[in-house]
Amino acid sequence: MPENKMSFDELAQRLTVAPFHQWMGLKLVAMDEDEIVIEVPWREEFVVNVDVGYTHEGILATLIDVAPDYAIAAKLGRPVPTIDMRVDYHRAAMPGTLTVKAQALKLGGAFSTGEAQVYDEKGKLLASGRGVYFTTPPK
Amino acid sequence: MPENKMSFDELAQRLTVAPFHQWMGLKLVAMDEDEIVIEVPWREEFVVNVDVGYTHEGILATLIDVAPDYAIAAKLGRPVPTIDMRVDYHRAAMPGTLTVKAQALKLGGAFSTGEAQVYDEKGKLLASGRGVYFTTPPK
Amino acid sequence: MPENKMSFDELAQRLTVAPFHQWMGLKLVAMDEDEIVIEVPWREEFVVNVDVGYTHEGILATLIDVAPDYAIAAKLGRPVPTIDMRVDYHRAAMPGTLTVKAQALKLGGAFSTGEAQVYDEKGKLLASGRGVYFTTPPK
Amino acid sequence: MPENKMSFDELAQRLTVAPFHQWMGLKLVAMDEDEIVIEVPWREEFVVNVDVGYTHEGILATLIDVAPDYAIAAKLGRPVPTIDMRVDYHRAAMPGTLTVKAQALKLGGAFSTGEAQVYDEKGKLLASGRGVYFTTPPK
Repeated sequence: MPENKMSFDELAQRLTVAPFHQWMGLKLVAMDEDEIVIEVPWREEFVVNVDVGYTHEGILATLIDVAPDYAIAAKLGRPVPTIDMRVDYHRAAMPGTLTVKAQALKLGGAFSTGEAQVYDEKGKLLASGRGVYFTTPPK
Repeated sequence: MPENKMSFDELAQRLTVAPFHQWMGLKLVAMDEDEIVIEVPWREEFVVNVDVGYTHEGILATLIDVAPDYAIAAKLGRPVPTIDMRVDYHRAAMPGTLTVKAQALKLGGAFSTGEAQVYDEKGKLLASGRGVYFTTPPK
Repeated sequence: MPENKMSFDELAQRLTVAPFHQWMGLKLVAMDEDEIVIEVPWREEFVVNVDVGYTHEGILATLIDVAPDYAIAAKLGRPVPTIDMRVDYHRAAMPGTLTVKAQALKLGGAFSTGEAQVYDEKGKLLASGRGVYFTTPPK
Repeated sequence: MPENKMSFDELAQRLTVAPFHQWMGLKLVAMDEDEIVIEVPWREEFVVNVDVGYTHEGILATLIDVAPDYAIAAKLGRPVPTIDMRVDYHRAAMPGTLTVKAQALKLGGAFSTGEAQVYDEKGKLLASGRGVYFTTPPK
């Protein structure tokens, strides 16, 4: 795996450019050569079930799409389009801060694979999955 | 495929219970024995790229997760938990109303499969995919 | 969707080049602009469960990988590498000829999506799924 | 994660019951609480491309389906039906023994998730992916 091309500050700043990322409150909290970590504060609009208060699977799916993209961005110097994404839901997500860890699994000249795991405040695995990203260099 | 157990009005109302669905503006606009159709008005917070204005893949992924769930809900009488979900992104989603069509593909006593397609205002396919849902009856 | 670039005979011949396709007995039986159809005679080595005699999921998965590849090959003039593949298993596959239908879902200059369905002799859907294929033209 | 319920010998024997596993030559070579390892000798019928000699993606897909199933079987005491499976192809598989590692990722009372990685003789990652398995106990 090549070395990161973006610093923590550069990637942290880049992550907050998208209005949807701002709305979700995505914040880069750690980054090394193997993995990035993003935190997501809970917000009321995330809820799918008002009785129990748990977070919508679409929020978890978004995190599984976004986080590996930025793990790959750290290596390539830019975020990339997602080709496809798959998520497994393991547990209902109760209200509380979400932590997402993501890794570049295989970098390729044409497309690349990354994966991510979403945890609750107790460290329980809520969802995990993978995306394939279009990393063909722009002409 | 069994007949629908929910009326259009029942399903339309059920879809708008979740705060995240309210925030996204999900609206049931059609329903028959084969398919349901949901419309989603564009909102500024959906955007991933401020220069071009296109909608975040997480929004499309959420629709691919939600819509087959409600197509299955129409058949079963209740929405169900998603086990896993996969989405293929076909085109960038420019600002504008999104239309999602969803079908129950295979209903099972333990788990069921559904699929969905997201279209833009011109009828271009933006994303499509599938979810597997947990349809084991509650004890 | 562009017109087919290969004739039925060309595609039928191309499908049987691979030793694994020969071993499986893959045979192109129909092809039009929308879809190709492949038949697969049952063989004893396909079996996973000797008591019941049903066919291994790996055989079904192989068909979900191969068939859309050749549906895309019909359009492009050559088979292409698979980037990733996903399969849903709907029913156990009892001994008997399998029929696979496959369609190119979205052709792209860099990558393309196709899908396939596997049926038993009674027309029951056994498995279905999708692949994403690398269709960037060779330099 | 619960302790293994099957011994190495029991799992090794169970793996070779299926005719398709016999044909493929699947052999359990290691097993601990975290992971199982299966070896697969190359055979001529695996080939997709006669010029280059590389192994068909369907063989890799089969391994990604089978191996997590037996990692879960070690925990549960029996192999289980696959609900769905997804595989990412990372590199062409040249002739040679394949090594598959598989882990139970999340065991559930109704369904469980496992993952697997396929390596070549040099330890290069050829393919990886996940399956979801039906682990609802028989009534």
